[in-house]
Amino acid sequence: MAENTIPYKIYLTEEEMPKAWYNLRSDMKNKPAPLLNPGTGKPLSAEELSPIFCEELVKQELDETTPFIEIPEDIRNFYKMYRPSPLVRAYCLEQKLGTPAKIYYKFEGNNTSGSHKLNSAIAQAYYAKKQGLKGVTTETGAGQWGTALSMACSYFDLDCKVFMVKVSYEQKPFRREVMRTYGASVVPSPSETTEVGKKILAEHPGTTGSLGCAISEAVEVATRNPGYRYVLGSVLNQVLLHQSVIGLETKTALDKYGIKPDIIIGCAGGGSNLGGLIAPFMGEKLRGEADYRIIAVEPASCPSFTRGTYAYDFCDTGMICPLAKMYTLGSSFIPSANHAGGLRFHGMSSTLSQLYHDGYIEATSVEQTSVFEAAEQFARVEGILPAPESSHAIRVAIDEALKCKETGEEKTIVFGLTGTGYFDLVAYQKYNDGEMTDTIPTDEDIAASIAKLPKVPE
Amino acid sequence: MAENTIPYKIYLTEEEMPKAWYNLRSDMKNKPAPLLNPGTGKPLSAEELSPIFCEELVKQELDETTPFIEIPEDIRNFYKMYRPSPLVRAYCLEQKLGTPAKIYYKFEGNNTSGSHKLNSAIAQAYYAKKQGLKGVTTETGAGQWGTALSMACSYFDLDCKVFMVKVSYEQKPFRREVMRTYGASVVPSPSETTEVGKKILAEHPGTTGSLGCAISEAVEVATRNPGYRYVLGSVLNQVLLHQSVIGLETKTALDKYGIKPDIIIGCAGGGSNLGGLIAPFMGEKLRGEADYRIIAVEPASCPSFTRGTYAYDFCDTGMICPLAKMYTLGSSFIPSANHAGGLRFHGMSSTLSQLYHDGYIEATSVEQTSVFEAAEQFARVEGILPAPESSHAIRVAIDEALKCKETGEEKTIVFGLTGTGYFDLVAYQKYNDGEMTDTIPTDEDIAASIAKLPKVPE
Repeated sequence: MAENTIPYKIYLTEEEMPKAWYNLRSDMKNKPAPLLNPGTGKPLSAEELSPIFCEELVKQELDETTPFIEIPEDIRNFYKMYRPSPLVRAYCLEQKLGTPAKIYYKFEGNNTSGSHKLNSAIAQAYYAKKQGLKGVTTETGAGQWGTALSMACSYFDLDCKVFMVKVSYEQKPFRREVMRTYGASVVPSPSETTEVGKKILAEHPGTTGSLGCAISEAVEVATRNPGYRYVLGSVLNQVLLHQSVIGLETKTALDKYGIKPDIIIGCAGGGSNLGGLIAPFMGEKLRGEADYRIIAVEPASCPSFTRGTYAYDFCDTGMICPLAKMYTLGSSFIPSANHAGGLRFHGMSSTLSQLYHDGYIEATSVEQTSVFEAAEQFARVEGILPAPESSHAIRVAIDEALKCKETGEEKTIVFGLTGTGYFDLVAYQKYNDGEMTDTIPTDEDIAASIAKLPKVPE
Repeated sequence: MAENTIPYKIYLTEEEMPKAWYNLRSDMKNKPAPLLNPGTGKPLSAEELSPIFCEELVKQELDETTPFIEIPEDIRNFYKMYRPSPLVRAYCLEQKLGTPAKIYYKFEGNNTSGSHKLNSAIAQAYYAKKQGLKGVTTETGAGQWGTALSMACSYFDLDCKVFMVKVSYEQKPFRREVMRTYGASVVPSPSETTEVGKKILAEHPGTTGSLGCAISEAVEVATRNPGYRYVLGSVLNQVLLHQSVIGLETKTALDKYGIKPDIIIGCAGGGSNLGGLIAPFMGEKLRGEADYRIIAVEPASCPSFTRGTYAYDFCDTGMICPLAKMYTLGSSFIPSANHAGGLRFHGMSSTLSQLYHDGYIEATSVEQTSVFEAAEQFARVEGILPAPESSHAIRVAIDEALKCKETGEEKTIVFGLTGTGYFDLVAYQKYNDGEMTDTIPTDEDIAASIAKLPKVPE
């Protein structure tokens, strides 16, 4: 189809929206390593996982072979309220850069959670409701995941308990307020409401909390209260499965116009966005049907792919979660509080880790001042104020487009714009005031936390 | 077309988007009263308006006869970045209410300004650029208009000076930061940078400012600096013209599915949203081609239609702007600071005032606690956190749908959802904490400010 017929925004019709999620693992020859029981060193069984996660989600977590898993009708109807998300042709950015590259972005920020997190939140809430549960518990740091889960639970009339890292609870009262408006109870973590919270408060009076501690509290409440389960917004296979809706829609939209991307770029924290965006493209790559450059972008302050090690590690700092094999900086690694984005997880999805290990993904890290420079440049011509996380992908998309300007190549670049930055304006203010700096961990910092990796029992 | 084929969201294609704005005045037998020069009492000429407004916008302001005015291609291309906005079928809200009514809303919040204001901001910035101006000045209260104008100016590389009511500047630092990110200079008003600002500061040390004062400062800077003009986000005929894009898209979307609305509901502050939403429907009504109930919803705290008087009044409290004939509470009327929404203007668009006077529009006022109750109910089932302004329309749409539940009537209700509430969470917090109250002006309050209406020279 002729170039000039490509609209600014490609929307799918409701009929064109995916009816099944795509399970990337089904096409992987080297499957991601299984979750292990930290006590026994043995792969966790469905029975062991069921007290923590909903039954159907345990099945999805362990299913390595089914290529497509049907999206239940209730979830598809909820998706219709805020999806399909647009695939946007960045005409204005291309013109501003003077690049012959064609830039597209899949924009997931047009919903009140402000990010792609809602795609998995609604699925997890649905299965909890279907199982007849009373409610779910979770942790949240910056608040995107907690907001998404609150919205999903309110839709299905489920109780929702969110443990919010105390420093965020205090510094981001607006995120907290959105969750309350959706009926969630939001508890600053560490709290006196759990054993692990009390223990941490006794040991570290005045601590402002951490994601790892909030996870531990949420898991404790879920496992001790009948009718509750714990849910998580990233890292897990089930989450990547649900997020495949991003990539499936992207691929259908591109196919409608006969567009073949050369480069696909996504930011990577725990991997939920990147894994979802690339899923069907990676499937083609694994099956030898097509080739794409796939680039994971991580912050230089928390560089698990580019400077981490591939090993079994805890998913939480409290060390009560299962062990996952992944690229990790060590579960005791704490990224600088200076970093504005939400890409602060020490590890990475096992599925993406295996693919990176096998050479199917490239990774690069970027510094936050250059990320905000790209964010502002993007905002001014494309009209969307991007989230700091998403702006990591913008940075690399712009860099690749500028390389095309030098070489004259008309490459097609697709990146994931995961969300909006409306709740990140403290960071924008720092940038606007020229007070933002970069903090990169030293080799010694990383070596120290990697030295503390758990020993896996033989 | 069969009921069940109506999707959750009706999107137009780019080809179906309006290519011209609709000038509602062309179909009015009783034209809106002209703006008057407060000194002479005579209608303002194009020559008198040109030092304040851009030339092309003066033409649009005074044009009462041309039915359609072409949307320049640059503006249409900008519209394509965030439009068409979806017309959403509120299936989930209908189900929750158990109403046989069919509810649709036109959602204008999916852009970084968070509201419909961008539709006119980009037009006004375009004409300023076309005229070769250096920049524009404006005022902003809650910040939606200032944000929209900052985005528009950044796109056309125009300088943008925003006078932000000081209390908002201090209480809404995030709105301010978005504007700065788009390159605008934001000055708390009253300021020492203008004569009128200095005068007000001398007379009222420690004042936290008002919209009227910010308007006066913005007008002063525009008229004293070569290459600058003043722009306004509501009330004016030109603004209603640009905002007709909302109604034109709505009508095209409804027509695609053969839907005829019975009731059209919009919130009303200065009238920019309501006037835009209803434009083509009102045109049909004026031409006798169709009939619709059209309801303007205003806050009980600032009830210009329902408790104001129809007279010439100043648009600003500083009394330096032209006189407009409108429903007004008097330019000295100050709505309670307790009110959370942005619908705090003492007057109303002259065009809408004439239509209300002639019986084509109904008006109703609602109290803010019931507005936030509706907002929360809507957010929980429809997934969008609405702006307080928009929630005035939600309140009345829900009330009308509940009446249908009683009578069994299957009415079709369309309302305007002008924006999102991400920057209004202080108000949501008040509501969540049970600390929100209603403040309704007494008859004496209103009589006192109406007694101060200017005398129009004969």
